[in-house]
Amino acid sequence: MSRFWSEMARRTEPYVPGEQLNRTDIIKLNTNENPYPPAPGVTEAIREAAQGLRLYPSPTADSLRQAIAETEGLKPEQVFTANGSDEVLAFSFMAFFNPGKAIRFPDITYSFYPVYSNLFGVPFEEVPLRDDFTLDTEAFSEADGGVILPNPNAPTGIYEPLDGIRRILQGNPDRVVIIDEAYIDFAGPSAATLISEFDNLLVVRTTSKSRSLAGLRVGYALGQPELIEGLVRIKDSFNSYTTDRLAQAGAEAAFRDAAYFEETTAKIIATRGRSVMRLAELGFTVLPSSANFLFCTYPEADAGVLYADLKSRNILVRHFGKPRIKDYLRITVGTEEEMDKLFRALEEILEIK
Amino acid sequence: MSRFWSEMARRTEPYVPGEQLNRTDIIKLNTNENPYPPAPGVTEAIREAAQGLRLYPSPTADSLRQAIAETEGLKPEQVFTANGSDEVLAFSFMAFFNPGKAIRFPDITYSFYPVYSNLFGVPFEEVPLRDDFTLDTEAFSEADGGVILPNPNAPTGIYEPLDGIRRILQGNPDRVVIIDEAYIDFAGPSAATLISEFDNLLVVRTTSKSRSLAGLRVGYALGQPELIEGLVRIKDSFNSYTTDRLAQAGAEAAFRDAAYFEETTAKIIATRGRSVMRLAELGFTVLPSSANFLFCTYPEADAGVLYADLKSRNILVRHFGKPRIKDYLRITVGTEEEMDKLFRALEEILEIK
Repeated sequence: MSRFWSEMARRTEPYVPGEQLNRTDIIKLNTNENPYPPAPGVTEAIREAAQGLRLYPSPTADSLRQAIAETEGLKPEQVFTANGSDEVLAFSFMAFFNPGKAIRFPDITYSFYPVYSNLFGVPFEEVPLRDDFTLDTEAFSEADGGVILPNPNAPTGIYEPLDGIRRILQGNPDRVVIIDEAYIDFAGPSAATLISEFDNLLVVRTTSKSRSLAGLRVGYALGQPELIEGLVRIKDSFNSYTTDRLAQAGAEAAFRDAAYFEETTAKIIATRGRSVMRLAELGFTVLPSSANFLFCTYPEADAGVLYADLKSRNILVRHFGKPRIKDYLRITVGTEEEMDKLFRALEEILEIK
Repeated sequence: MSRFWSEMARRTEPYVPGEQLNRTDIIKLNTNENPYPPAPGVTEAIREAAQGLRLYPSPTADSLRQAIAETEGLKPEQVFTANGSDEVLAFSFMAFFNPGKAIRFPDITYSFYPVYSNLFGVPFEEVPLRDDFTLDTEAFSEADGGVILPNPNAPTGIYEPLDGIRRILQGNPDRVVIIDEAYIDFAGPSAATLISEFDNLLVVRTTSKSRSLAGLRVGYALGQPELIEGLVRIKDSFNSYTTDRLAQAGAEAAFRDAAYFEETTAKIIATRGRSVMRLAELGFTVLPSSANFLFCTYPEADAGVLYADLKSRNILVRHFGKPRIKDYLRITVGTEEEMDKLFRALEEILEIK
């Protein structure tokens, strides 16, 4: 603590991201990055945009928003872009949630939500997931300040069908419901299809997972224009130019290549299916995943020890030492080859022949 | 207003950036961009970094902070980086200023400061510049909540020598004093030389002006480690990865090329000197500029009309319709050729032979 820190800086409990080791000898299955590179056109688009770096970027990112709108079957005024979906989420807390009005999110969920709540002084209630880690959608009705939840949920990977999302939206007609769809492209239908029906729905997305652009920092939100305008007001009061020229150009190129997106997403989904079977054969219990990661537990081993054993073999996965999920590991779906190495390492560690 | 907007979204009055026209036929002297491209190594560094886009960037930007520290003769723990200096400023308001404690800044200054104040509920007092637009440094003593000011000031371009900055720092030993040095590389010595002496000093910088990287969005702050830690706490509670891989690599390359930086900065300063003389010959009164722009007034013409006349000739400058400065135009120092075109246009408009 420094005597110069504000109340906000004192009260906050910063988010701790997964380890980002700057090493190439490691199999990195800990932060749900895509194992495949971005669409081939991305590099060329970036090279071209790099010619204009002396000039400010477009503060409204029109061209990128147009590409996203076309991809989603929406209008550009229903699209907001920012510096990664974490920034979109931070702006959303600022634009739609209030001090003194408690919002609700699941007890097991993205651990940045309580951080934003503390930062901006927004109280929160944690709604327990059911024993099987599915959402108790009724329990989100009539939330005082609003609702935020990921679908598929993180770190469980469980997808809530749109009927459940619809119930939550109907239960909160006067509050914003934020559906954080970081992993939706590996799952079922998106809540974006409900936007025309619900003016209280904000869908948040990222290019970090299914578009292979974690290093470029582009997130976006979809919703009716009055919610998008609220986000624009906050952005324009915080940082006029949140996405740089290269990020706008690179992300646009990724959205323009639907075929590559579908091909790589399908590959990850196929590897996920095989990996679930392999883990089950090894004796793991794996939650049904609709994301690019698997959340699993091995009854006879301590998950923290397993995490450390894998790390000593240069395989990085994620372990959250939290109630209800301390026996679980979250494993990103990598390439087939990476997953084979993981399975061999697990066989050795667990002494399975 | 939407019923879904938070109190924060309702009360804010967003900043309006200078026009960013997506046209190549225009002489753009309105947002103080550098007329020269970034250092030659920047493009190559970006091309290389683009190979790793599927992976998250370093959340701590170690390599970039090291390059800045070496450039400034500081340690990496005295350097903070973020997504443009506007984000650094926003984080600084969050980290060091409090609701209920009034901060002070000049009445004529960067117009984003009152926006941040309103956004975060920080009250403020505007300290009038003297009639000649210089700082009344005594008037900043014992500010309740802290001080923020640009040096050189914007949009006047006037540089306050370090003696004056020192007085402000001494007058506020228990409050943070933020010196926003967006334009310092075109001016005299930096307050960064006072960091070892003052634990209440935060110096904010940008790569958008002297490093020709407006399109890349990299700003930074310099100060003693406890202030830098305060900024890191806020960043890690807001967005873990605020500078993307390409921004980190590109900005680092810019800092590694001191010769190019000195050459382009010297060219701009030389053009500035010639432009001041030319404008004076045309009958303008020009404030003494230590920035890459000129703040000037023409006694017999309405500045708003002059702005519009120039725009109709495809020359974009900036006019602020505010008290005390409504008769002034802010003109970015472009290339020699661009400035010649500006002077010819002014001769035509003002009917000077």
